[in-house]
Amino acid sequence: MTSPLNDASLDQLFLTARTYNAWLPKDVTDEQIRRIYDLAKFGPTAANSSPMRVVFVKSQDGKKRLEPYLSEGNREKTMQAPVTAIVATDFAFYEHLPKLFPHADARSWFAGNNALIESTANRNGSLQGAYLIMAARSLGLDCGPMSGFDQAGVDAEFFAGTQIKSNFLVNIGYGDAGTNLFARSPRLSFDEAAQIL
Amino acid sequence: MTSPLNDASLDQLFLTARTYNAWLPKDVTDEQIRRIYDLAKFGPTAANSSPMRVVFVKSQDGKKRLEPYLSEGNREKTMQAPVTAIVATDFAFYEHLPKLFPHADARSWFAGNNALIESTANRNGSLQGAYLIMAARSLGLDCGPMSGFDQAGVDAEFFAGTQIKSNFLVNIGYGDAGTNLFARSPRLSFDEAAQIL
Repeated sequence: MTSPLNDASLDQLFLTARTYNAWLPKDVTDEQIRRIYDLAKFGPTAANSSPMRVVFVKSQDGKKRLEPYLSEGNREKTMQAPVTAIVATDFAFYEHLPKLFPHADARSWFAGNNALIESTANRNGSLQGAYLIMAARSLGLDCGPMSGFDQAGVDAEFFAGTQIKSNFLVNIGYGDAGTNLFARSPRLSFDEAAQIL
Repeated sequence: MTSPLNDASLDQLFLTARTYNAWLPKDVTDEQIRRIYDLAKFGPTAANSSPMRVVFVKSQDGKKRLEPYLSEGNREKTMQAPVTAIVATDFAFYEHLPKLFPHADARSWFAGNNALIESTANRNGSLQGAYLIMAARSLGLDCGPMSGFDQAGVDAEFFAGTQIKSNFLVNIGYGDAGTNLFARSPRLSFDEAAQIL
């Protein structure tokens, strides 16, 4: 049986973690990027479907390809971030199920069932996107997730000829708490959002 | 600047964490349940939209109401679990934005735009569901998330008269590693699912 993480870890993951809008001039290494994925990949998904795909945009060339599709308010901070992850979803995820779910013919549950493909891909791709944010934080990195971008433009630029579609973006680096960090907005209390039955 | 969590914590959150199918006979307290939500609520969502709603089903009466809608393979383990969270999504989430996002009239971005309401609710409700799983694990609890249930039935039973719809279920407790715990299935490697650009 395991115990709760210590308070500093709970702070780092949840309680004092923030969405950053500016970044310290400190590199994120390729090794750190690989580590983020290699933690996040172990988060649970339905039938181990694992539909998330990620492009970690780190080079100036890559950033220039992304720039035209960013909304105005997300442009500067994204161009400045050490890495921007394009969290995307592969709607052909079920082609990998013979490897990912070897106990049963799980591919046949999905093939041809577009409603199930879509709901499974969307739900589980987003779960994995959250695992990626938590994995980055658990490695001591900060995140700035964003939905404000031209999805069709990003898909044409980065995922042409595939069934992969962008889901959201996450800037990753070491957050600059002194620049454009707003006061934390309120959350819904337990009793506003939840109940014990 | 923060550091990576220690190896035991990374194991607990990701590397040795598993989806459990049987549960030790040890209670999960109401205080633990509230703590899970009070960590998870701080995970980031678009415009702080926070669309997740959760019913933590703990009583025998509550479990009996849930039972008819569980798929065959999920029934026994769910009835045995100390708590089953019905992770749900409120498609009227934007009514709370005057409180949750006080800097701007964010409610007006959504009201009447059903496509944006739906994509925002689905994406961010699932992100929050993943935060809930990671929060439970960070408190030393184990999870068993499931998609196999009758969503329309659960919605009629638990969310009638609202715009809340069930998303997925999560059994929560102390996992019994000796019963029905399968070998971990393979994951996609970094190079199969990701790239650095």
